[in-house]
Amino acid sequence: MDTRTSPYRARIAKTQEALARHGLAALLVPSSDPHLSEYLPEHWQGRQWLSGFTGSMGTLVVARDKAAVFADSRYWVQADAELAGSGIELVKIPTGTATHHVDWLAREAKAGETVAVDGAVLGLAAAQQLRTVLDKAGVALRTDIDLLAEIWPDRPALPAAPVYEHRAPQAPLARAAKLMQLREAMARHGATHHLVSTVDDIAWALNLRGSDVTYNPVFLAHLLVTLGGATLFVGEGKIDAALKAALAADGVALAPYGEAAAALAALPSDARVLLDPKRVTLGLRERIAVPVVEAINPSTLLKSRKSEAEAEHVREAMRQDGAAMCEFYAWFEQALGRERITELTVDEKLSAARAKRPGFVGLSFSTIAGFNANGAMPHYRATPESHAVIEGDGLLLIDSGGQYLGGTTDITRVWPIGQVTDAQRRDYTLVLKGTMALSRTKFPRGTLSPMLDAIARTPLWEQGLEYGHGTGHGVGYFLNVHEGPQTISKALPDAHMAMEPGMITSIEPGLYRPGRWGIRIENLVLNVPAGPLQGAGEFGEFLAFETLTLCPIDTRCIDRTLLRADEIGWLNGYHATVRERLLPLVDGAARDWLLARTEPI
Amino acid sequence: MDTRTSPYRARIAKTQEALARHGLAALLVPSSDPHLSEYLPEHWQGRQWLSGFTGSMGTLVVARDKAAVFADSRYWVQADAELAGSGIELVKIPTGTATHHVDWLAREAKAGETVAVDGAVLGLAAAQQLRTVLDKAGVALRTDIDLLAEIWPDRPALPAAPVYEHRAPQAPLARAAKLMQLREAMARHGATHHLVSTVDDIAWALNLRGSDVTYNPVFLAHLLVTLGGATLFVGEGKIDAALKAALAADGVALAPYGEAAAALAALPSDARVLLDPKRVTLGLRERIAVPVVEAINPSTLLKSRKSEAEAEHVREAMRQDGAAMCEFYAWFEQALGRERITELTVDEKLSAARAKRPGFVGLSFSTIAGFNANGAMPHYRATPESHAVIEGDGLLLIDSGGQYLGGTTDITRVWPIGQVTDAQRRDYTLVLKGTMALSRTKFPRGTLSPMLDAIARTPLWEQGLEYGHGTGHGVGYFLNVHEGPQTISKALPDAHMAMEPGMITSIEPGLYRPGRWGIRIENLVLNVPAGPLQGAGEFGEFLAFETLTLCPIDTRCIDRTLLRADEIGWLNGYHATVRERLLPLVDGAARDWLLARTEPI
Repeated sequence: MDTRTSPYRARIAKTQEALARHGLAALLVPSSDPHLSEYLPEHWQGRQWLSGFTGSMGTLVVARDKAAVFADSRYWVQADAELAGSGIELVKIPTGTATHHVDWLAREAKAGETVAVDGAVLGLAAAQQLRTVLDKAGVALRTDIDLLAEIWPDRPALPAAPVYEHRAPQAPLARAAKLMQLREAMARHGATHHLVSTVDDIAWALNLRGSDVTYNPVFLAHLLVTLGGATLFVGEGKIDAALKAALAADGVALAPYGEAAAALAALPSDARVLLDPKRVTLGLRERIAVPVVEAINPSTLLKSRKSEAEAEHVREAMRQDGAAMCEFYAWFEQALGRERITELTVDEKLSAARAKRPGFVGLSFSTIAGFNANGAMPHYRATPESHAVIEGDGLLLIDSGGQYLGGTTDITRVWPIGQVTDAQRRDYTLVLKGTMALSRTKFPRGTLSPMLDAIARTPLWEQGLEYGHGTGHGVGYFLNVHEGPQTISKALPDAHMAMEPGMITSIEPGLYRPGRWGIRIENLVLNVPAGPLQGAGEFGEFLAFETLTLCPIDTRCIDRTLLRADEIGWLNGYHATVRERLLPLVDGAARDWLLARTEPI
Repeated sequence: MDTRTSPYRARIAKTQEALARHGLAALLVPSSDPHLSEYLPEHWQGRQWLSGFTGSMGTLVVARDKAAVFADSRYWVQADAELAGSGIELVKIPTGTATHHVDWLAREAKAGETVAVDGAVLGLAAAQQLRTVLDKAGVALRTDIDLLAEIWPDRPALPAAPVYEHRAPQAPLARAAKLMQLREAMARHGATHHLVSTVDDIAWALNLRGSDVTYNPVFLAHLLVTLGGATLFVGEGKIDAALKAALAADGVALAPYGEAAAALAALPSDARVLLDPKRVTLGLRERIAVPVVEAINPSTLLKSRKSEAEAEHVREAMRQDGAAMCEFYAWFEQALGRERITELTVDEKLSAARAKRPGFVGLSFSTIAGFNANGAMPHYRATPESHAVIEGDGLLLIDSGGQYLGGTTDITRVWPIGQVTDAQRRDYTLVLKGTMALSRTKFPRGTLSPMLDAIARTPLWEQGLEYGHGTGHGVGYFLNVHEGPQTISKALPDAHMAMEPGMITSIEPGLYRPGRWGIRIENLVLNVPAGPLQGAGEFGEFLAFETLTLCPIDTRCIDRTLLRADEIGWLNGYHATVRERLLPLVDGAARDWLLARTEPI
């Protein structure tokens, strides 16, 4: 790009004019929105608009005479390319650290100066940390101004997609019952009001869904629950008259999306607000003048534990999802070598197969189809400009998932293309051993989920191998595909990560040989009672994982000499289950494929 | 005990008179000393003296008209018995919680009142927590008064045992070099002074040892390191002239033990003090008026990583310790059934066998010899009043260790007595599987030690079995047998628990059948480079455990059907090593015993 014509150079200059106008030393533009969501509506993609950097994580800081984007190693190649010509510096930060920009800000601004950030999109925890560092440097922080409003002329409007009901039978617990659960929690905390800003919590509590962002079936809103009713702050026109009446019948009134802050400021003096400091922004928190009780959102814990009725729907969604996989792979294997198949074709065909299944609503995330070297990038995404043709020899990694009315799926498989080397077989088998080891683990109820992480890594560690991402994430129920509070990873555990019956988590160890190939084998598992054991309850309640995902794990890539008899037994047992549950749903080539790929080894 | 004659009733009454005299609402008596040590000199066993409760953990609170001891489940039986007749309530708290007494205090005292605790024995972290709760309740906290001084007429004096040098070759790094390491750390933190109050840190830094408390070869002192020298605050008469001169040659001056606080108060205004908030008391912290840098004691990290020269001494100490075990067990097996052997005899004979070995200094902790039901109490200690005779059938658990000039040992073994049942064999074998699984694990350098905990538990979890204690603790080098910062347990990890080469840790899974039997199989392991692996460094540096402990693991208790071939291979390999290393040190019956007990299975 010609540096003189980069639009981002002009946008940064315009931002710096605004800084001067307001007497500010710098503007901080985080990657977040008023709901602290994983996916941001375009309206809050100010960092992307100002800098041109489109990574899903990263922070922009614009100072009077310079600007910088802070991003971790996953984004360095992309950011280098996207920032070229913009005059914006790329600051490369270690993965997992999110505070380098704070120190940078504290150095750039002089004592007595003021820096700005939009408090409406700043999480309370991030705000506290920012304040601490700036205070020490004698720098003031202004959070009551949204500079983007002045400098972004064609800023996208807020999404206006309609909100719809998640109905029985897939939503087995009625909205009124869920609100009662929240009110019970409020009573335990001595709270009269409960503010919810996270959109997955709101969607769950009200049995509502939307499509304001990609992949997560949620809608933008804030919710204020009282002991006798509730107010949903939501964009006008998104809820039709029938739904409005249904909500009113359950005591839920509507108010304009932008009025949440004013409503909080107007709370009666004897109110006491329950809120989750990790799930509310500074902008809303600062409007509350009455006492606050801080605790994790009760809905975050409640929705993590799927009921048996919900689990039954998930099992059915997994059958549909598995049948779609069979259909896709049957086509793929017969077409390979006969027609031109690229990583993009994989996404198209697989999405089309899913779209035909009953209950399908959309993808649960952007399909990752990575052939050989592309598979070695855990967050790879093929684009029309840059993607591989599936041909020759190697390994094809496909990580994909769907949103169904009865659940959310997420599955990764690796398939051999042409000839597979011994080294690939060895890597594949070691990853599979990790998936199996953790899938078979039983553990005391309440075990903090990160403590299980090492079990999946042990077979790789034994060979000096490791993967840089977590082993597993919580998964929502026709909700976010990344949905905690539990996570099987090296994250420092907290008490909310206790493993409880009904939680759904991914198990997805991997191994990445940069420039060569990548392997990841992922299933979703459900926390279930472990059943009768020798301990017979004397040592407390034990849980086991029920593997929910139903799809063959390729056996042609296996180095059988690396598997123990008990591991072969588990794999053959899994394939017998997959065959039994999927067979009624497939026919023709898909049926043949399923039978072939579920043969015992 | 006749309730009217309990001496503790009178002591509590006397405390309550003192409360009235000083206008205080309550007195808090924690189980701690000015060095926040595991073992307290009698001088600071005020809680024991006042209440009669002798458990190693527990807090006493005396209010105007009542008193309570707070203790966790390990101590309930003991505390119930010891508090009988004292009028002191036992408050049973969940294991791992240490703050119930704070809430109790906040309830008992009224707003505007004052409660007291001796700041000289209160850790900074505990103080902060206490202050937060009391502040909310409007209760003032006084920490500048030691009420015990008024009410404890025959309070034991401070220990006066001589301090001695830990010399080369067992102390391979000279004192001057260690002080330089501390000064380098001070420079990194921009500190001019470094206050050390923890006695293991001081013993390590100065290559000094003492015997002021049981088992840990340490002495009471505070150390103030400057960039050019150091002052050791230590009881007069404990350091002889020759040692004083040697210390002076390394720039270490002596000052009376009681003058540390005054020295801190007199620091020059341009001083900046490095201290560890977890390892310094409020009493000393409050005397410091100059800026403070808070960080973990550099010595805590430095001493956790044993040098190769130290590791070589530990290996030799393990040979001596193993030879003592052979001698003891050879005697035990031939004497069993011929003479009366009790749990106390085990302690005597085993200690005597250790005492004969070169380099032996003392026990590293109180021997646990528990037969059958007694073995099911992880912290059991036989007493002259209450102990079992070893006879009939069952399992004998022996957990013991020694302090040697060249290292600290800690080993648990379980031995069959008479007939062993199938259920005992199964439990024993599952615990052994846990010990072996973790012993064989390789892991990336820097892995947080608690993340490895589940690996030892997996074989037990698979059967619905669990143990209530941690899997392993760090071990000092001729220092404390419990010495961090690393710990393999469910403790919430922090960054200081990163596994680094040279660390020594115990691996000690167990299984306890209350009223029936207990099993624990414990070795000490050293973090060593994992050697050549398939990953070949591409995925970073890997560590493995070298098993240091050398003593047969009984094979007669094993249910061989529960072991995999690779596990049998590990066990036979371990026994071959034990035989090879110990054989030159034993003869006669001990030699025969070693040969028999190291036979491959």
